[in-house]
Amino acid sequence: MLHDLFPPGIQHALDLAGIFVFATAGALLAVRKNFDVFGIVVLALVTALGGGLFRDLVIGAVPAAFAELSFFITPLIAAAIVYFLHPEVQRINRAINVFDAAGLGLFCVTGTTKAYEFGLGLTASAALGLATAVGGGVLRDVLVNEVPSLLRDREMYAVPAMVGASMVALFIRFDMLNAVTTGLAIVTTFVLRLLAMRYHWRAPLAWNRRSAVAEEP
Amino acid sequence: MLHDLFPPGIQHALDLAGIFVFATAGALLAVRKNFDVFGIVVLALVTALGGGLFRDLVIGAVPAAFAELSFFITPLIAAAIVYFLHPEVQRINRAINVFDAAGLGLFCVTGTTKAYEFGLGLTASAALGLATAVGGGVLRDVLVNEVPSLLRDREMYAVPAMVGASMVALFIRFDMLNAVTTGLAIVTTFVLRLLAMRYHWRAPLAWNRRSAVAEEP
Amino acid sequence: MLHDLFPPGIQHALDLAGIFVFATAGALLAVRKNFDVFGIVVLALVTALGGGLFRDLVIGAVPAAFAELSFFITPLIAAAIVYFLHPEVQRINRAINVFDAAGLGLFCVTGTTKAYEFGLGLTASAALGLATAVGGGVLRDVLVNEVPSLLRDREMYAVPAMVGASMVALFIRFDMLNAVTTGLAIVTTFVLRLLAMRYHWRAPLAWNRRSAVAEEP
Repeated sequence: MLHDLFPPGIQHALDLAGIFVFATAGALLAVRKNFDVFGIVVLALVTALGGGLFRDLVIGAVPAAFAELSFFITPLIAAAIVYFLHPEVQRINRAINVFDAAGLGLFCVTGTTKAYEFGLGLTASAALGLATAVGGGVLRDVLVNEVPSLLRDREMYAVPAMVGASMVALFIRFDMLNAVTTGLAIVTTFVLRLLAMRYHWRAPLAWNRRSAVAEEP
Repeated sequence: MLHDLFPPGIQHALDLAGIFVFATAGALLAVRKNFDVFGIVVLALVTALGGGLFRDLVIGAVPAAFAELSFFITPLIAAAIVYFLHPEVQRINRAINVFDAAGLGLFCVTGTTKAYEFGLGLTASAALGLATAVGGGVLRDVLVNEVPSLLRDREMYAVPAMVGASMVALFIRFDMLNAVTTGLAIVTTFVLRLLAMRYHWRAPLAWNRRSAVAEEP
Repeated sequence: MLHDLFPPGIQHALDLAGIFVFATAGALLAVRKNFDVFGIVVLALVTALGGGLFRDLVIGAVPAAFAELSFFITPLIAAAIVYFLHPEVQRINRAINVFDAAGLGLFCVTGTTKAYEFGLGLTASAALGLATAVGGGVLRDVLVNEVPSLLRDREMYAVPAMVGASMVALFIRFDMLNAVTTGLAIVTTFVLRLLAMRYHWRAPLAWNRRSAVAEEP
């Protein structure tokens, strides 16, 4: 059983850590937008749980966001912390980015694994793992009426998650998925994302369009 | 069986009333945005059925919006009435707000009950009841490219629904859910929402940010 | 069995053609918005697969977008072609509109049929067929932060699909659904959409509002 890769307690703790950091990022965005306390809570919940909810709807699982009480409480705690401590939290914006990169690594790995456990093919599992990792952020950006940074900011948010999800799919394919290789996929995603931010790696625009300006209608 | 709280005919009529008033609000927004007749119909359908559709997808029920013909016809009737009578309907904007508050009360109660019937825990049921009540409006606002008023307008749209859904969850917990307590939850939500509008109750911004202006990027 | 209307190979080819042209339209929009290569891929996938994914979630089917590898590969090919050839593709913008109209016809027919096969009523099946045909475009427009043209542009994008889906529902009702009548519904949708674009057919605004200007808040 793929489920027993990690002791369940560890896996659950890692899930909660991913939820917590994504919720923190969502709550901070709400503070920056001057939303009220309910806006802070809603953005924290949507950012942390949106990607997993989408994955569970696609594979037909009972959505963990509603089945698992701790998945629901954790974003509330993150929202409360941001509500009272947001100046301090903003000062550690860099730490947030680090945690967010860790969450990205974790979510693309657990998303791919769960999709495969529910019978999807390897390519589809990797695609859904990627969607799990980036889905919450896309939903958050749509709600605050911005073009999702996934599409726009060219800072390769998707690439590290794509690499991590593909690694998991390959490990499953060659029957090599275990605690070590899973950890390797998480760390690779994490480090790639940090490097992309540190060195401002940019994805290319369409061919022959490198110097073009945007043609807005 | 929780299903038999009300005689089915009454429950169905209450559901249709909620759908009708939400559809009217959606259609009026489409008129204000100068959308064409199809835009009016689409916004009426989305506003009235979006919340329930989300709930049914999460709990794995056959979506009532597609299984129940009257749920589909009712928004069309509301759209037709708005199409021909919109100046009159706008003049009774205040009445619309009253009906919308009633719909909020009804949807948070029926949403919570249905979620519990499908096996969710009490907290998750209340959360999903709240999502049922506010979901259609959020979807409508996303489609017309506005930040959902749930996040932005600080008029405590969510709080009354939160109170109503929590009351239902508590009544279920203590085995006290019956026609009287259900009605009490609906009326409490309804009155709280009216009071919040009447007296402009405002939710607090993040701590220490009461007088801050929004920092837009 | 409704499934055997066409030989499976033909039906699959038609599905892929619809996916391909919708993906091309999505990728071209991404180029016009100056998104990077990942934005092009994401918009191609969302436009091509969003409508069918929504349909499959509603009817409780395993989403074809994740179950069928060719449904996932096809948008990637379309995105790659647009990435390298976009100046040429834009020059054949008119041809794209023709293909898009064909996709609209095909998706509303296959969407209605699949919904009926999964037990929905005739009206609900037609409504879901319509949602299948227009859903991907709506999702695309929401992601790039525009009001969906379905609501706004008054060029009757929805009407041809509505006619096609209703024809299929009527054919099923009178037990007349076969290869000829299915083809008739596809062609009718296709031709109506071309005529609506060619002659700029416009849907009416709300009654008494024909000459009004939009009241933006």
